[in-house]
Amino acid sequence: MRVAALAGGTGAAKLLRGLAAALDASALTVVVNTGDDAEVWGLRVSPDLDSVMYALAGVLDTGRGWGRADETFRCLSAMAVYGAPTWFTLGDRDLATHLVRTRALRDGQSLSAITAQLCRTLGVAARLLPMSDDAVRTTIRTPEGRLGFQEYFVRDKCQAEVVGIDYDGADRARPAPGVVEAIREADLVVVCPSNPVTSVGPIIAVRAIADALAAARAPVVGVSPIVGGAAVSGPAGALMRARGLPVSPVGIAHAYAPWLQTLLVARDDAACAPELAALGVRAVPTDVMMPDAERERALARAVLDAARARLPLQ
Amino acid sequence: MRVAALAGGTGAAKLLRGLAAALDASALTVVVNTGDDAEVWGLRVSPDLDSVMYALAGVLDTGRGWGRADETFRCLSAMAVYGAPTWFTLGDRDLATHLVRTRALRDGQSLSAITAQLCRTLGVAARLLPMSDDAVRTTIRTPEGRLGFQEYFVRDKCQAEVVGIDYDGADRARPAPGVVEAIREADLVVVCPSNPVTSVGPIIAVRAIADALAAARAPVVGVSPIVGGAAVSGPAGALMRARGLPVSPVGIAHAYAPWLQTLLVARDDAACAPELAALGVRAVPTDVMMPDAERERALARAVLDAARARLPLQ
Repeated sequence: MRVAALAGGTGAAKLLRGLAAALDASALTVVVNTGDDAEVWGLRVSPDLDSVMYALAGVLDTGRGWGRADETFRCLSAMAVYGAPTWFTLGDRDLATHLVRTRALRDGQSLSAITAQLCRTLGVAARLLPMSDDAVRTTIRTPEGRLGFQEYFVRDKCQAEVVGIDYDGADRARPAPGVVEAIREADLVVVCPSNPVTSVGPIIAVRAIADALAAARAPVVGVSPIVGGAAVSGPAGALMRARGLPVSPVGIAHAYAPWLQTLLVARDDAACAPELAALGVRAVPTDVMMPDAERERALARAVLDAARARLPLQ
Repeated sequence: MRVAALAGGTGAAKLLRGLAAALDASALTVVVNTGDDAEVWGLRVSPDLDSVMYALAGVLDTGRGWGRADETFRCLSAMAVYGAPTWFTLGDRDLATHLVRTRALRDGQSLSAITAQLCRTLGVAARLLPMSDDAVRTTIRTPEGRLGFQEYFVRDKCQAEVVGIDYDGADRARPAPGVVEAIREADLVVVCPSNPVTSVGPIIAVRAIADALAAARAPVVGVSPIVGGAAVSGPAGALMRARGLPVSPVGIAHAYAPWLQTLLVARDDAACAPELAALGVRAVPTDVMMPDAERERALARAVLDAARARLPLQ
């Protein structure tokens, strides 16, 4: 079974770890958001690519949900003495990833090529693809001006009022090599439990990817990142409200209509099933929280079961 | 007393630490070799500038003679997994210096400007100047081809046969702002105990610096890096031989003629005094080894005494 997954960072990393364990990992292609990418200390940082890569390589700091396990921050301390911004906390081991990536990009390699090389050296069997090798930058509009996503999220801790979200460059961005083919040839498309506005949003803002999803022959199954009216992690709630989306599985279904067919939702959110059905999305109540590896695998199996069921839509 | 010093790395760092303690450090201007500079992992590394800066800031690893004290190498370990070259061992704290420098250079700042800024944040009272803001690269000619200095020295551990040394770019390089003025206005010019071929050699390969030394009104006092027929540290011996210079204080005097007036030599090398005198250089036998801070200060005082004596040559 060939699986193509759309992914952001923390929540996606958990489900993907479960899927990689439940499947032949080499049959898994992950299309990862790059709208969060930023330049830090002159280095190109790709937070979502790295979270997914580290998770699948078994070196993610699972407590934080980002960065490398067994990490130190000694370079960061030295940067602070030099007056460099330290709100984006790059660890000493993590730095190697950004150094290799930055140098390769400067040498003219594509982000997809260098991602494949990093994954190979870390022993990641799944195929990770950035959504695009072209620059797409998620920008948060606030009453005081525009903020890069990391400025809004990490530096300012989501304190700014959000009046809009832009995906700068998305209109010109082409899908990275293999992205459209992976969606087209998949037996299952999975939308990971990621922020629909700033994690999956940038991916589907690339027109050719949205077109491929609309034309996909495979079932498209999502997992709601919203449980009980709030995001499991991160700022999805505020951003969904800014987009006019209800902060519920219904908002998720709205964001992914018309190509989402099935959405796994928390059992406590089962009452939203009729509203989802009205949008053409079948709700599958299940246990969507992933506090440990066993529950990651269980949710991955639930996604695969929902796809295999291929029940007719309402 | 305003002092201008020409400096390489390890040996220079020791004497300069002594001079900074013996003098008002703000009266000390250090003109530092940049011929050793290299690109490592996409970062611009300036080994001699950093050794001198760290020494004067009190953060040098005095055991190694380079890099920062209390250092770790966790990024390096991660780079090794990615297959990056690890023969140039950048430490986690040291990385901050190269990150700041690389980014500032890329933003169009000069090496002198960023060196001044780094020194300011580290609390270095002396003024450090790169010899030039233009690229000069010391290149070692071997029977098998040309090697960058760090490839020859660090990677290949000086195993290659040396048939010549080039200072690529020196003919076009201008002195960094302040270098010529510092030599012209100094009350004393000190040539640190550094490799005359690859540490001081690149500095004086910049024509305007050599001209300023020849025209200096101040006494020029050097310290021999060669003791008992061998370099105190580093590859000076092989490189001097390749240049046709005797590996002795006489070779040092040859390298710095005609502007060197006084050379502090080891007491055991006192017999070279007549040969030095024939080159116009007064030999001052003294204790030139600097195994600890007290001996660094003692040698610095000996340098100042030799300058104050201003004895007539011969």
